[in-house]
Amino acid sequence: MMEIMSSIERRMAAAWHNKYVIRRAISTQILMSPQSLVSLDLPEIWTAAADNLRPPTSLNCSNEQDAVVIDGKLIAEDIRSTIATEVRRMKESIGKVPGLAVILVGQRRDSQTYVRNKIKACEEAGIKSLFHELPEDCPEDAVLSVVSSFNEDPTIHGILVQLPLPQHLDEVKILNALSLEKDVDGFHPMNMGNLAMRGREPLFIPCTPKGCIELLFRFGVEIMGKNAVVIGRSNVVGLPTSLLLQRYHATVSVVHALTNNPEEITSEADIVVTAAGVPNLVRSNWLKPGAVVIDVGTCPIEDPSSEFGYRLVGDVCHEEAVKVASAITPVPGGVGPMTIAMLLSNTLDSAKRAYEFV
Amino acid sequence: MMEIMSSIERRMAAAWHNKYVIRRAISTQILMSPQSLVSLDLPEIWTAAADNLRPPTSLNCSNEQDAVVIDGKLIAEDIRSTIATEVRRMKESIGKVPGLAVILVGQRRDSQTYVRNKIKACEEAGIKSLFHELPEDCPEDAVLSVVSSFNEDPTIHGILVQLPLPQHLDEVKILNALSLEKDVDGFHPMNMGNLAMRGREPLFIPCTPKGCIELLFRFGVEIMGKNAVVIGRSNVVGLPTSLLLQRYHATVSVVHALTNNPEEITSEADIVVTAAGVPNLVRSNWLKPGAVVIDVGTCPIEDPSSEFGYRLVGDVCHEEAVKVASAITPVPGGVGPMTIAMLLSNTLDSAKRAYEFV
Repeated sequence: MMEIMSSIERRMAAAWHNKYVIRRAISTQILMSPQSLVSLDLPEIWTAAADNLRPPTSLNCSNEQDAVVIDGKLIAEDIRSTIATEVRRMKESIGKVPGLAVILVGQRRDSQTYVRNKIKACEEAGIKSLFHELPEDCPEDAVLSVVSSFNEDPTIHGILVQLPLPQHLDEVKILNALSLEKDVDGFHPMNMGNLAMRGREPLFIPCTPKGCIELLFRFGVEIMGKNAVVIGRSNVVGLPTSLLLQRYHATVSVVHALTNNPEEITSEADIVVTAAGVPNLVRSNWLKPGAVVIDVGTCPIEDPSSEFGYRLVGDVCHEEAVKVASAITPVPGGVGPMTIAMLLSNTLDSAKRAYEFV
Repeated sequence: MMEIMSSIERRMAAAWHNKYVIRRAISTQILMSPQSLVSLDLPEIWTAAADNLRPPTSLNCSNEQDAVVIDGKLIAEDIRSTIATEVRRMKESIGKVPGLAVILVGQRRDSQTYVRNKIKACEEAGIKSLFHELPEDCPEDAVLSVVSSFNEDPTIHGILVQLPLPQHLDEVKILNALSLEKDVDGFHPMNMGNLAMRGREPLFIPCTPKGCIELLFRFGVEIMGKNAVVIGRSNVVGLPTSLLLQRYHATVSVVHALTNNPEEITSEADIVVTAAGVPNLVRSNWLKPGAVVIDVGTCPIEDPSSEFGYRLVGDVCHEEAVKVASAITPVPGGVGPMTIAMLLSNTLDSAKRAYEFV
């Protein structure tokens, strides 16, 4: 299967290249570089490394002991408890609480789980939550109208549109419609631009990247001057994580599906953040001994022995990596809980900003 | 001198670290990561590599012949001539021409030269240019008022605020005031965010990065899947160049002043774009044999034998690099002329968009 993908990818790339070269030849455009960047946005299909196919093996231990497993759940609970205290303080001082609106379109099971978890976390922290569900086939205007009503609601400080949206909806248009001041996911291009640019400050840092950095800080991992590799370049994780690590002065390389030698590049990294969504992509030979590994991958795989019939696995072959890395996050229980904690943190920050509450 | 800088940098970094650690300890903030990214934005002071101090040497040639020197001036002339033809076609068809407004605050000699060259290039291409000069000590409101009047002028399709601005002016505020539709420099965070994010399209790509990519295209350099290193992470060159190379599917690493092993990382690159502003930073041992080198550095150094008493040098030790690289841009006459050509191209695109002229 993975071999086939690889071949598809190669053909796709060749087709794209031919199309581009032909277009270039017949075009009257001034410049030779394609004018549309969006036309370049190939889907990310990861090529199988030979590694992925071999089973995990017992390794010769290069560390004297196994990596520390970073308990994201515990850290997230600590953060959520601090947030709950802050929310109580706000309520007691000014009689207000932060409010988060969650919009879900369609019935994707994974999205429903994520949304449920977010709403539950809000309740536990004392944050007001409003949940608006729309049918899979709802028109774009209906979503825009819900966004607009939450934009105007002064008791709502964060609006979250659960992604991915159904195909017929224009994600760019809908995300652009969110009030910048309520974009707690930090996915608005204005927030992304301000995250990227030195001397500027985004209103919100996307939750998962912020959670990854927080984990590094809590574990005393120095970022400045370190080589960091981010695997994956999605708008929601890979891209903002690379920008954020760069703001913290890491030397950042971004590895993606079209990278020729991902294992070689990754094996130079002191810090690896992986968000490719490919189980077992990162094997022991991808890692430098002593590296810190943050595994953002969450891929559901069938598991009849599990309560729900499936379980989540990360991008990293955990049993191999634990013998090489100095610290590693598990899946589940690593980055996932941190993402939710950071969503609450962003919502609290937004409410504080709105009420000028210090 | 360079040794002293290095020591200053180390002390600065230590001071920053101590300050941060202390702040963390006494703060009651929820999260351990600093809340303000701007406070992290250390000045970029490059550490001297031992290399910088030794004089260029004759190398054992690893290429059979010297690198091709990429004549940016010639290519830029070709592009400018095509733009001039397009401007004439627009004038003949709809009786309109593109218009560019240039705002210069203060009397920096280098800025004056850049502005003069840009205006001259506009004239040659048939693009209308308006030049507004303000005194060094003018208040912020005066600059904002000029920006605002150009925003409203329908004959102006591009507005350029020559950087750097005098210290007392808020660059962020002034650049944010530019109409997005006229931000031909592409420095608005909204444009930068859209450049960074897959599935999105900036209205303008910053001129220098666009010029670098155009040079690569004109020389038939494939970008997809190649390892690219960008040296420097400025908002105007390094950052957007890294984002653009990534959109073209290079595997991008960004090397900066706090990178520990810049020469090692750079020597893995098939494509090197350097924009550090440090003469002779990139020596032969930084380069992989056959690499393509785009030198954006333009540092004036004293030269009594030159007409103006100084000459421009790039980041690359040209006489060494030419023996190792397969292609290299000279300074001057490489990227510089391309930047101006891309400014004209962006202004033309903007006018075409405004007049819906195809």
